[in-house]
Amino acid sequence: MLTLRHLAIDTVRENVAFLNRRCTRYHVEDFLGLGRVEVRNDGRSLLAVLNIVDDPAIVAPDEIGLSDPAFGQLGLAAGSAVHLVPPTPPESFELVRAKVGGAALTDEQLAAIIRDVTDQRYSKIEIAAFLIACASFMTTAEVLGLTRAMIAAGTRLHWEGLGTIADKHCIGGIPGNRTSMIVVPIVAAHGLPIPKTSSRAITSPAGTADTMEVLANVDVPMERMQALVREAKGCLVWGGHVRLSPADDILISVERPLAIDTREQLVASILSKKVAAGSTHLLIDIPVGPSAKIRSAGDAVRLRKLFEHVGDRLGLTLEVAITDGSQPVGRGIGPVLEARDVMAVLRNDPAGPADLKERALLLAGRILEFDPAVRGGSGNRRARDLLESGAALASMERIIALQGPPPAVATLGSLVAEIASPADGIVSSLDCYRLARIARLAGAPTDKGAGIDLLRKVGDPVRRGEPLYRIHASTNADFTFAQAHAADDNGVRVVG
Amino acid sequence: MLTLRHLAIDTVRENVAFLNRRCTRYHVEDFLGLGRVEVRNDGRSLLAVLNIVDDPAIVAPDEIGLSDPAFGQLGLAAGSAVHLVPPTPPESFELVRAKVGGAALTDEQLAAIIRDVTDQRYSKIEIAAFLIACASFMTTAEVLGLTRAMIAAGTRLHWEGLGTIADKHCIGGIPGNRTSMIVVPIVAAHGLPIPKTSSRAITSPAGTADTMEVLANVDVPMERMQALVREAKGCLVWGGHVRLSPADDILISVERPLAIDTREQLVASILSKKVAAGSTHLLIDIPVGPSAKIRSAGDAVRLRKLFEHVGDRLGLTLEVAITDGSQPVGRGIGPVLEARDVMAVLRNDPAGPADLKERALLLAGRILEFDPAVRGGSGNRRARDLLESGAALASMERIIALQGPPPAVATLGSLVAEIASPADGIVSSLDCYRLARIARLAGAPTDKGAGIDLLRKVGDPVRRGEPLYRIHASTNADFTFAQAHAADDNGVRVVG
Repeated sequence: MLTLRHLAIDTVRENVAFLNRRCTRYHVEDFLGLGRVEVRNDGRSLLAVLNIVDDPAIVAPDEIGLSDPAFGQLGLAAGSAVHLVPPTPPESFELVRAKVGGAALTDEQLAAIIRDVTDQRYSKIEIAAFLIACASFMTTAEVLGLTRAMIAAGTRLHWEGLGTIADKHCIGGIPGNRTSMIVVPIVAAHGLPIPKTSSRAITSPAGTADTMEVLANVDVPMERMQALVREAKGCLVWGGHVRLSPADDILISVERPLAIDTREQLVASILSKKVAAGSTHLLIDIPVGPSAKIRSAGDAVRLRKLFEHVGDRLGLTLEVAITDGSQPVGRGIGPVLEARDVMAVLRNDPAGPADLKERALLLAGRILEFDPAVRGGSGNRRARDLLESGAALASMERIIALQGPPPAVATLGSLVAEIASPADGIVSSLDCYRLARIARLAGAPTDKGAGIDLLRKVGDPVRRGEPLYRIHASTNADFTFAQAHAADDNGVRVVG
Repeated sequence: MLTLRHLAIDTVRENVAFLNRRCTRYHVEDFLGLGRVEVRNDGRSLLAVLNIVDDPAIVAPDEIGLSDPAFGQLGLAAGSAVHLVPPTPPESFELVRAKVGGAALTDEQLAAIIRDVTDQRYSKIEIAAFLIACASFMTTAEVLGLTRAMIAAGTRLHWEGLGTIADKHCIGGIPGNRTSMIVVPIVAAHGLPIPKTSSRAITSPAGTADTMEVLANVDVPMERMQALVREAKGCLVWGGHVRLSPADDILISVERPLAIDTREQLVASILSKKVAAGSTHLLIDIPVGPSAKIRSAGDAVRLRKLFEHVGDRLGLTLEVAITDGSQPVGRGIGPVLEARDVMAVLRNDPAGPADLKERALLLAGRILEFDPAVRGGSGNRRARDLLESGAALASMERIIALQGPPPAVATLGSLVAEIASPADGIVSSLDCYRLARIARLAGAPTDKGAGIDLLRKVGDPVRRGEPLYRIHASTNADFTFAQAHAADDNGVRVVG
């Protein structure tokens, strides 16, 4: 038996056990070949990846250390006696092996895999194996089965008595594309419930949760969110509190570093989260452009069809909008700058970005047409009325008041550099990927006031020496880094 | 800048960086999404998976800790100032993504991947992605390209002036199959150089290195091994000292826990190691049986053809022997017991296991026929002469003397349990997998004296209550564990 120790190390969605190389009870080598151990006692058991420690201050020879999530999952007190047995890999991994060998998996088989993934019985390399096997080929029936399995493995929200629950989701990749923060107040002002949960940025300079957090608290527990939606019809909160599709969170933690994004996994990921959130009517926004996630109309249509196929079978009323993803939307890139653009549109400020406004109206109009009372073809008109009458602004103010004040006041970064045009001409392209990277190097989204303020968009004339955009930052290191990156390639093409 | 700290944690072939959650210089969240950081200074750089620490005694907020292999690889002193940048994934991973998408990779592309793997720029999940993409499909040209890339990424031994360098390799899976320890002395006695490097057992109860270590030191540095082969013509050493095909060692550290064994990866792994070891003539042993790695004659032939195809193009003279893998070879399973069987055969003890002897003669005969001076069809006869004349025993004694005494005296486990036949009848099958597992639970190979001593083989008559085999162990815990496992299913089938 070994004494259990809790190590304050977060091994980020993987269970890790730490054994002293001079372990008094077990031969470390016996476990090294398989890379894992099974820790057991009192009917509890945990599968963990094995690391070896040579420092008795971290783990003594008669101890076993468990990393933070693993310790919690085993659920025994520190100091408990535990024993180790050779690891029994999760039974469902046999199915992953079959899939690698070319098999298509049934709904039941996919459910078995997803249950073990959710219970953290898969190591990250096993998850990678599953994801790559799926990326190699996946039938439409498997996408549906995987989505159902991910829904079943988590919590599912119910909105008793509310009827239609609208939602929207953009597959992302376009900086400044903060339409949700305009669409939600419009749809809520119409009276259609739209409980929007969003993510924080992972690789982009701002997520909707980051930008909304400039204006309001987004860290709202689930019960509070449900009450809020009953009162204001809409919300714009961070989705991290709600254990919707936890399997998806685990799969994404491996998918993201591998940067393997398949159509199939995208559809399963989004639809599982939306069905779990209790949405009944969903609008998916797919921007298409040369530096967007989806780069051709053909790819967009293939993705649309897969969304429709799976969405229909899940009982969702689902619409897909294929939108222009050729350049950033609005002017700001970064939370404070994007919040400024959003509020300018909601306030009907004539200086507000027209492209952001029109795009939000297009999407809101399609969602409003989910309402049987809205005449076909008149959704856009209804959305424009709600925006231009100030009803949407009032709705947004109500949502902000109910969610509460932001945790900290965020102000625009005071270090400012203008990036000048190298020549006279017309702006012919803005590289979404490059501009996002520069905004991120400037400090966004962790530094909410950092980012890029675009002064020229595609088609605008510019003279040599005139600014194309401004970089905002708050610390010298970030400021220098972002400028150096822009000097290398500023992401804007000007043709004479 | 952060202060570099060396953590005495061995994260087993993966670079891991430990950052305090309250890091004073960087926002931990900025790196968490991608799961990795790049640590830099003085033109040195290291890509590492990120773990988060909440205990300042392990890593303080102004420090970054690196795990044992990572610290060594970065090559900076503890206390050095380093900075972190967002990780740049290895460029060659783009090729892995292409392969996942269905591309066949060229020799140059495979070489780029294998170089990055060898330089530890791939995380384990990236390695898993590469392995699974290869397991999904791999052309014969890719197997050849991968093998060449693995050879090029490591050290290659040269045996100036020795001409033919013979070698043998068994794909494994059959307990007690210690033919190498008989084949090497026979071939060496004939005068053909046969420098045999072997592995220790990972999932089996004994590897050739473990069994040879009962008789002699096997931990021999490379120069010493080369001198030894010039003198004795053969050796039986552990291969861990020789940096032959280091990429293979890294790939295997991920392949093994996934238990994904494809024909293609097996061939690339074995042939890269053998070419790197300077072998010119190679005999591959493929045992076939219901509980062996290869379970049908058809599979064995497909594997044989792939070995031949790739071996020919690498300039190897390669022969494949497809052998009986229906039951364990010899009587002992476990290092001490297997060493006893080997020495009994070399000493021409009439009580020695005839199956082990005949199998070793078959394989040795085929290797001897690599010698142009040996007449076709007479290799087996020549092998038998060398064994029965005592020349092979003398050769083995010379090899043992040159390699030196074993690090510790190993004796047979004194705790003994006999497993009795439940009925009168004939032994109809022995389950290789099951018996190996019981021997391993008894303590083999870490406890060299532990294992199984088979008293009946397939076809032997047995009466109810008579022993089928004995379990040997040295500690009560192992002894109890192995017996419980045998009580559950003893791995022997007796039919009336």
